[in-house]
Amino acid sequence: MFSYETPIVIVGLGVLGMSYAQSLHQAGYTHIYGIDIDQQALAHGLSLGYLQEGSTSPNLMAKGKLVIFALYPHTLIDFVTQHAHLLQAGTMVTDVTGVKRAIIDQVNAVLPTGVEFLACHPMAGRESRGYAYADASRFQGANFLIVPTAQNKESSIAAMHSLATQMGFAHIEVLDPQAHDEMIGYVSQLTHLIAVALMSGKDRSHLARYTGDSFRDLTRIANINEDLWAELFQLNKDVLLREVDDFLSQVQYLKTLLAEDQVEQMKEEMRIATARRKGFDKQVTR
Amino acid sequence: MFSYETPIVIVGLGVLGMSYAQSLHQAGYTHIYGIDIDQQALAHGLSLGYLQEGSTSPNLMAKGKLVIFALYPHTLIDFVTQHAHLLQAGTMVTDVTGVKRAIIDQVNAVLPTGVEFLACHPMAGRESRGYAYADASRFQGANFLIVPTAQNKESSIAAMHSLATQMGFAHIEVLDPQAHDEMIGYVSQLTHLIAVALMSGKDRSHLARYTGDSFRDLTRIANINEDLWAELFQLNKDVLLREVDDFLSQVQYLKTLLAEDQVEQMKEEMRIATARRKGFDKQVTR
Repeated sequence: MFSYETPIVIVGLGVLGMSYAQSLHQAGYTHIYGIDIDQQALAHGLSLGYLQEGSTSPNLMAKGKLVIFALYPHTLIDFVTQHAHLLQAGTMVTDVTGVKRAIIDQVNAVLPTGVEFLACHPMAGRESRGYAYADASRFQGANFLIVPTAQNKESSIAAMHSLATQMGFAHIEVLDPQAHDEMIGYVSQLTHLIAVALMSGKDRSHLARYTGDSFRDLTRIANINEDLWAELFQLNKDVLLREVDDFLSQVQYLKTLLAEDQVEQMKEEMRIATARRKGFDKQVTR
Repeated sequence: MFSYETPIVIVGLGVLGMSYAQSLHQAGYTHIYGIDIDQQALAHGLSLGYLQEGSTSPNLMAKGKLVIFALYPHTLIDFVTQHAHLLQAGTMVTDVTGVKRAIIDQVNAVLPTGVEFLACHPMAGRESRGYAYADASRFQGANFLIVPTAQNKESSIAAMHSLATQMGFAHIEVLDPQAHDEMIGYVSQLTHLIAVALMSGKDRSHLARYTGDSFRDLTRIANINEDLWAELFQLNKDVLLREVDDFLSQVQYLKTLLAEDQVEQMKEEMRIATARRKGFDKQVTR
């Protein structure tokens, strides 16, 4: 378990990293250190008391017993590859990345002996970028995924579970990297791709005046951070391509039913959709 | 213009018809009559004072100077075909149907001389069925579409515009039947078909515990009234099939970019989507 005095280093003080700092500070942690290339981000975290120390140098990482990487995927890999030697034996390393298999393999390949990487995915992303949009209250009621491998200790998983609870996450789940990436391919990546497709095809901007809440809800996630999501898509390409194919098949099927006036079968598909959707209405806790 | 004493007959007291009765009553109209096959719906409207008279017989329709059909498309066509002879010359007839070309042609074909049909589409539908779910407050801030043909009088359009304002609709637009059906094919029908496809394909119910608000927003309309929507799809088949094809092409394109690691072009599509989506954030008034 972590104690309130555990030295925690957060690498990357963007919207998510700064939210971690805020959340851990509010939870009572007293030794939170931040690393960022942006002096303003450091000054912001220090002035609000979220951070006890900040630096633009990776060397500060050596202080951490828990190191949280809140970086874009390729930046995370680059940073760890260059600076992993700074990590002390006995340190736990974690991340916030939205895909897992690729990250876990690459990070573990460069970590020094005695440093444990426990991958995590706080499902509380937002499209706005930068520390100014940090808001720890977004974690309240959100999902937190712990994605261990056979190399992780049970005690580490328990410590992370406890930390996520302290940060306000409501639904904490443990699943393996393959299951994580398959789940996220459907629940998050496919839906983002659909929203992008709805908006990036033929320009229908002139229809904005006629739209209602349904349309707005459905396309809200078309407002997307392209630098992050293009990477996430790429790193989960095999799963996402399968999901896109499954979805295309079903749209093609509905199209055929429509074209062939198979009204009863169309109704049956709608009944199936309605019944299944009810199961998604509320989050199910274990 | 209608006066508060204008006799108004509402045919069909489901969720939308009863909301009309409630809304017109609250707006100050004092001669509202209801026709429905369900005695309980009539009793409900009478007991709340929304209706001054109710009947299961179509004969009551003869009393109306304004007759509002709040029926499913095929029921509307059947009813008008059987009972149009009851309408008096000088009566205005309107509807609430979500598709327009097919309805306008079929209704006009059977109306007696001197009866004017002015098609309307209140964009305040909901998935729940039946008068018990009626709620005129849903009209507040919603869109109301008036869909005239060359046969409609300017004075009739003005009267309907005024009535919709009294009922609380915030954005009242006038557009022709073809433009209406093309707009609704994209904004409403395509999005419902996508939500159905996401849910009715492979069963992913086990992923419910991992979903967040984005996924729930995107699939909310998969909870669909299949009897109504299968009809609406069918009656706008040419447009919807085109929209489905356009959407499929764009999804295929994004899939190709992903498969071929064309990251920069994927980012460009995401930037286009983000920029266009901003235009849909708020309703644009004229």
